[in-house]
Amino acid sequence: MTGVRPAAGAVPGPAYRTLERRFRRLLALRDAEAMLHWDLATMMPRGGSESRSEQLAALKTVRHGMLTAPDMADLLAAAEAEREAESSLDDWQTANLREMRRTWTHATALSESQVEALSRAVSACEAAWRSARADSDFAAVRPKLAAVLGLVRECAEAKGERLGLAPYDALLDEYEPDVRAAEIDRLFEPLAAFLKGFLPRVLDRQAAEPPVLPIEGPFPVETQQALALRLMRMLGFDFDHGRLDVSLHPFCGGTPDDVRITTRYDENDFASALMGVLHETGHALYERGLPRDWRGQPVGEPRGIALHESQSLLIEMQVCRSRPFLALITPMLREAFGGDGPAWEPENVRRLYTRVAPGFIRVDADEVTYPAHVILRYRLETAMIAGELDVSHLPDAWTAGMEELLGLTPPDDRRGCLQDIHWYDGAWAYFPTYTLGAMIAAQLFQSATAASPDIPAGIARGDFVPLLAWLRAHVHEKGSRLSPRELLVAATGSPLDPRYFERHLERRYLGVAAS
Amino acid sequence: MTGVRPAAGAVPGPAYRTLERRFRRLLALRDAEAMLHWDLATMMPRGGSESRSEQLAALKTVRHGMLTAPDMADLLAAAEAEREAESSLDDWQTANLREMRRTWTHATALSESQVEALSRAVSACEAAWRSARADSDFAAVRPKLAAVLGLVRECAEAKGERLGLAPYDALLDEYEPDVRAAEIDRLFEPLAAFLKGFLPRVLDRQAAEPPVLPIEGPFPVETQQALALRLMRMLGFDFDHGRLDVSLHPFCGGTPDDVRITTRYDENDFASALMGVLHETGHALYERGLPRDWRGQPVGEPRGIALHESQSLLIEMQVCRSRPFLALITPMLREAFGGDGPAWEPENVRRLYTRVAPGFIRVDADEVTYPAHVILRYRLETAMIAGELDVSHLPDAWTAGMEELLGLTPPDDRRGCLQDIHWYDGAWAYFPTYTLGAMIAAQLFQSATAASPDIPAGIARGDFVPLLAWLRAHVHEKGSRLSPRELLVAATGSPLDPRYFERHLERRYLGVAAS
Repeated sequence: MTGVRPAAGAVPGPAYRTLERRFRRLLALRDAEAMLHWDLATMMPRGGSESRSEQLAALKTVRHGMLTAPDMADLLAAAEAEREAESSLDDWQTANLREMRRTWTHATALSESQVEALSRAVSACEAAWRSARADSDFAAVRPKLAAVLGLVRECAEAKGERLGLAPYDALLDEYEPDVRAAEIDRLFEPLAAFLKGFLPRVLDRQAAEPPVLPIEGPFPVETQQALALRLMRMLGFDFDHGRLDVSLHPFCGGTPDDVRITTRYDENDFASALMGVLHETGHALYERGLPRDWRGQPVGEPRGIALHESQSLLIEMQVCRSRPFLALITPMLREAFGGDGPAWEPENVRRLYTRVAPGFIRVDADEVTYPAHVILRYRLETAMIAGELDVSHLPDAWTAGMEELLGLTPPDDRRGCLQDIHWYDGAWAYFPTYTLGAMIAAQLFQSATAASPDIPAGIARGDFVPLLAWLRAHVHEKGSRLSPRELLVAATGSPLDPRYFERHLERRYLGVAAS
Repeated sequence: MTGVRPAAGAVPGPAYRTLERRFRRLLALRDAEAMLHWDLATMMPRGGSESRSEQLAALKTVRHGMLTAPDMADLLAAAEAEREAESSLDDWQTANLREMRRTWTHATALSESQVEALSRAVSACEAAWRSARADSDFAAVRPKLAAVLGLVRECAEAKGERLGLAPYDALLDEYEPDVRAAEIDRLFEPLAAFLKGFLPRVLDRQAAEPPVLPIEGPFPVETQQALALRLMRMLGFDFDHGRLDVSLHPFCGGTPDDVRITTRYDENDFASALMGVLHETGHALYERGLPRDWRGQPVGEPRGIALHESQSLLIEMQVCRSRPFLALITPMLREAFGGDGPAWEPENVRRLYTRVAPGFIRVDADEVTYPAHVILRYRLETAMIAGELDVSHLPDAWTAGMEELLGLTPPDDRRGCLQDIHWYDGAWAYFPTYTLGAMIAAQLFQSATAASPDIPAGIARGDFVPLLAWLRAHVHEKGSRLSPRELLVAATGSPLDPRYFERHLERRYLGVAAS
């Protein structure tokens, strides 16, 4: 990126400064909302839900009103004119103004009646989905899903016109600025082909090995939590600026200066909570590392959902399921849980943490089969948005896709097209970000370890400072100054390339080299 | 109150309905703020304070902007005209509109520059007070306190002009609608005279009794907490709509449907945390009992600070330090802490909980001497607001007052005029509410027990349903429909009368009758 330099002595003009003030307030209100969401999931007694909904709705309405205020169009145009006429903005300010316009464009692309209709349809559909999933009864939710899809297509069309994009790309743009379906096709199709040949080899190799020995509990919650806190600290989580709590669905919330991550504990399985915590710690490190000087401004925000996911997957998948890391923590696990015997041998622990087993459920999937779940959903949702797949054919299309990609036939819709909340909740074009994140993680991690031998050496002995320093410099501190593509090129020398991820899988699961 | 009845078939007019919508949003934002304050005090890591300040400031600014929006004056006038012309509002709506105007009048009585100047002066003074108190160095904060007082007097003048009130009354009106200094004089002067004769008699009586045996710890925090939760449940605290947590300064926060109370535990003294929890439980029961149909509207809010305090003092002082209640819980205490021996005899526990000991510090004061602390501050602050007492003479006036009221000479200003944050933090005309609350509590409790023998009988056996039902019907569910005076007359048959409180003290501390 060629730097835009402000004219000597130039200061940002009044329109730009007004916008900075407004966005600071807007994002402070968004942060307030994030905290109330955290509280809702971790602390709130169940009787508080109605009043909490009122609070969140009020905040959302106020934020939307501020963002779409009648004078915003003029302010943005005036700030852009100031920049042109007076070269008064530096690189960061220029990027900040660009992100302001981007945020505003997305917020104003839809009419109020569109937003309201979609919001109503989504509420009804999500509620119907909960019982439909429990009963494995797709027909019960089908009309409501069709209504949501109809409105999403209408909104995608409207957004697309405003942004000059195809409808699906317009939806994608909200999560992933500048990423288009054509790019995802270019990445996902070779990956699908790769996995088709790769998965049987991994399963054959596993079958030829002696069986993995189960590690048996119970594992007391207090012990699991103490261990989670210890590993978080080791990875660089800053407890002066964050917490770990319990919620039904683990997440990373809060704000960069007050990051709230959650997990849930299972007394019979310490591995799931522990890896969950490490995953959320990856998200947390990203949030915490966002550029300090740009707090409360759009350019200081994380650069899209896929990059955020890459930071959690880099920690969880690239680092914490690696042979050196598992060798490092196995003695800690044994000590904490009083583990002994062959099941607690490092090699058995490693195999337990890298087990591949095709299954019906995405959220339970391992690293190798997870992308197949995402590719299936991506293919189906692009077809639905394009009007090429009708909701009434979704269960059949799902089954056909699962058979093709993983060779499995779901026994019912609960384990098929009813398993995920996303579509029913109005989140379309979100699924690809999971696998884009996995690919970005592999590419970043390979560049990081190639850049400095201190990084793998540090990991092996529990010193994450070198890795974190690299991530801070190349990812976290960039905020939203660059596009996702520019950021990746600057950090790794190339745009996103699925071969990094493929090579990682080969090393880990076929032993092509140590990982 | 003669009921205003809406005309048959009349519905509220458009201006009134617009105001209801706006206030609903405004109070939802205020509730969001309350939750963020709770989080700040209980959960937030220290590094989160800067971003939390941004969130709270943004919410406050937005709320102030909504309340003082340019069209609010017209809307209020239009809603009042609708009511007159069409008799379209019922009693509750009429009171709601009155409270809307009240809120608006207070919010708009000061100019923005006055609010800002006061806010800046208070910030500076509060910070200086923290170190001045630690060093017991009044001179170090005196100029800043003088600056605050100057601005408070200016604001009181401005508010007074707007409200048609004397300056001190205008300040008071924000905490205690319709209560005036003349009324407080009428209540406090006889009380001061009463206490002058009463206190020596109590102290003589105590001196003639065998000494109270100390109950020695340690008392594990977990046990204290389990006991606190048990007693809260017994009193009627609804854990589906609230929580108990830990904070440095105990408080009752949150919202009526999600009441968050806090305490702090001392391993060497279970009594302070326990009584603190019971006090906050009284506040919580009030919040929880506010009229369900008027959530999010001004008329559904608590009726002033003194009435709120009366609800905590009714539970703590009238109920929980009474002989029957202490007899009820002493076996629970013994069981929980494994207590045994003469110190754990019910009579000793009762005397421990009703010990009178004049001291320098208000927040450590017992029920008998507490009013003296408040009366002192009330006399001093009315004199300062009236311009009759200069800040430079405050320490001397304080000492003289303490000598007169409690016969004690503070050894330094830390134990004198530097002990409370209120004045330094801009909270003038707040102190009287503590003792007004104590008097209201005594009057309400005597009316309640007189109204139904089930109430004292219930308390003796741990059944608080009859008491809570009475409080709900006569206090909680009234919200802000009546003025504090109207509410008290409706509940007890008379306006506030200090003799209820005096009789309560006589019964408890001189054994005039069992209490």
